[in-house]
Amino acid sequence: MSQPLFERLTLVGIGLIGSSIARAARRDDLAREIVISTRRPETLARAAELGLGDRYVLDPCEAVRGADCVIVSIPVGASAAMAEAIAPGLKPGAIVSDVGSVKQSVVDQMQPHLPAGVHFVPAHPLAGTEHSGPEAGFPSLFENRWCILTPVEGSDPEAVERLKAFWVGMGSKVELMDPKHHDMVLAITSHIPHLIAYNIVGTAENLGAVTKSEVIKFSASGFRDFTRIAASDPTMWRDVFLHNKDAVIEMLGRFVEDLFQLQHAIRFGEGDMLFHHFTRTREIRRAIIDAGQDTAAPDFGRGGTKPAAE
Amino acid sequence: MSQPLFERLTLVGIGLIGSSIARAARRDDLAREIVISTRRPETLARAAELGLGDRYVLDPCEAVRGADCVIVSIPVGASAAMAEAIAPGLKPGAIVSDVGSVKQSVVDQMQPHLPAGVHFVPAHPLAGTEHSGPEAGFPSLFENRWCILTPVEGSDPEAVERLKAFWVGMGSKVELMDPKHHDMVLAITSHIPHLIAYNIVGTAENLGAVTKSEVIKFSASGFRDFTRIAASDPTMWRDVFLHNKDAVIEMLGRFVEDLFQLQHAIRFGEGDMLFHHFTRTREIRRAIIDAGQDTAAPDFGRGGTKPAAE
Repeated sequence: MSQPLFERLTLVGIGLIGSSIARAARRDDLAREIVISTRRPETLARAAELGLGDRYVLDPCEAVRGADCVIVSIPVGASAAMAEAIAPGLKPGAIVSDVGSVKQSVVDQMQPHLPAGVHFVPAHPLAGTEHSGPEAGFPSLFENRWCILTPVEGSDPEAVERLKAFWVGMGSKVELMDPKHHDMVLAITSHIPHLIAYNIVGTAENLGAVTKSEVIKFSASGFRDFTRIAASDPTMWRDVFLHNKDAVIEMLGRFVEDLFQLQHAIRFGEGDMLFHHFTRTREIRRAIIDAGQDTAAPDFGRGGTKPAAE
Repeated sequence: MSQPLFERLTLVGIGLIGSSIARAARRDDLAREIVISTRRPETLARAAELGLGDRYVLDPCEAVRGADCVIVSIPVGASAAMAEAIAPGLKPGAIVSDVGSVKQSVVDQMQPHLPAGVHFVPAHPLAGTEHSGPEAGFPSLFENRWCILTPVEGSDPEAVERLKAFWVGMGSKVELMDPKHHDMVLAITSHIPHLIAYNIVGTAENLGAVTKSEVIKFSASGFRDFTRIAASDPTMWRDVFLHNKDAVIEMLGRFVEDLFQLQHAIRFGEGDMLFHHFTRTREIRRAIIDAGQDTAAPDFGRGGTKPAAE
């Protein structure tokens, strides 16, 4: 691209996602200038040490001045306050976006504060790792991953196209979706999996008959798979659950209802029901691999497991 | 080792685990002769094609004749019938072991059928992948993984030592445990994780508001982690749940109790409780990595995810 997509890109929040955007946008020459802002001075200093941007500005309202694109990458619960804080600095015609895992709540929180003439296009890149902070980011994080845009009523189609081009430029595949539908889809594909992973890891810590050290020692038999996503950022996930409450509680109800069916089958020795269920779920794994959404390598291709220090 | 540990090793069942034992025992020269038996003639022929043993014998009773070690690697629900079938062929002094994921039930099923003078030492290697069948095995499967032996009353200490040496010879770390305690430990570290993975994958298939193709498409945001273990062998896992019923139902009760606490916190906006819980679970992940039980690489070090075919 001879001409960068944006003259000035301001990234507010520079954790795993924000810093990966900074790295990918730089690598792919998507912005002439990258301005970085974040709440804590230490984190901003760290971003500067890592050379993630061109300018580092603590005050978000100052940071967004003159930017033609602003991407807010913060816990979703802080969205309203951030929209209010940056609003006076936004230039007319600027695109404002985010990366939150919940969309309707972000719309409700941010939209009322944004001035007319600013184009609000909420976004959610389905990418991440269990690590957090500016060091955790890397430029290929979004490659071949979906980014869902949830334009709101009155979103300027041209602004949506520019933001789409930005995500495609970083290697993502882009899908448009209604914010409420997004929240339902993510409740089952992401929020409930995280919640039950967090939950079983907690349950395992509180058992009388089995010690925590036994759980850790013998975790490779299944449990360890859950601990990865249960190591995700606590602030981010607290906010996800609080801000997607209805969809999460709805999906959780279905999950528990289904779990009781399996429990019933176990209690009454209904082997055929279990066998049939476990055969169906195997097919979904195959479909996910066929769709390029996971590796086919056994055990996720984990090769790097070190021998235990004994 | 100049002298193999066993003169004749008979492997009854040649799936993922049995075939990995065959490969590792050959590689590490742990048996002079390896005899393979399995229920289906096609599978036995496949084992012969793969060159997994020295002799291939369909009738398990014939296969175990003259063996100084017999390892049964079959779904745990078939243990009683198999013990009865092989009993007449076992030579005095032979070690009989298994690899089942449940131990008390295997003891109850097999012990009554085994003749006096045969040493029964149940075992459970905590190793596997989501794949099954003789092609799925590989010789390094047990390296740096735990193998739990659950000797029963009257187990000959020398037989326990020899079986321990066999597993250590294949690269495992060995732990002795009471069968009932094993079943509790595995209920939380393995059986419940598998059950809830199977369950959420089922729940995701039955939603009205979110389509199955959306679940597959957007699975990388958490869900796909669960589909791996929900792709495990259906027969094996049916039997695990049916034969560790009490421990599974007990642990499931605790899991659901804890889940309702999280649901309550979400419903009533108790952010501090959620944050505190999610911080504790992060520490367990760290402990598991420190114990060498998982890779520290982000996202399990998944590198092989192919771009989606679009």
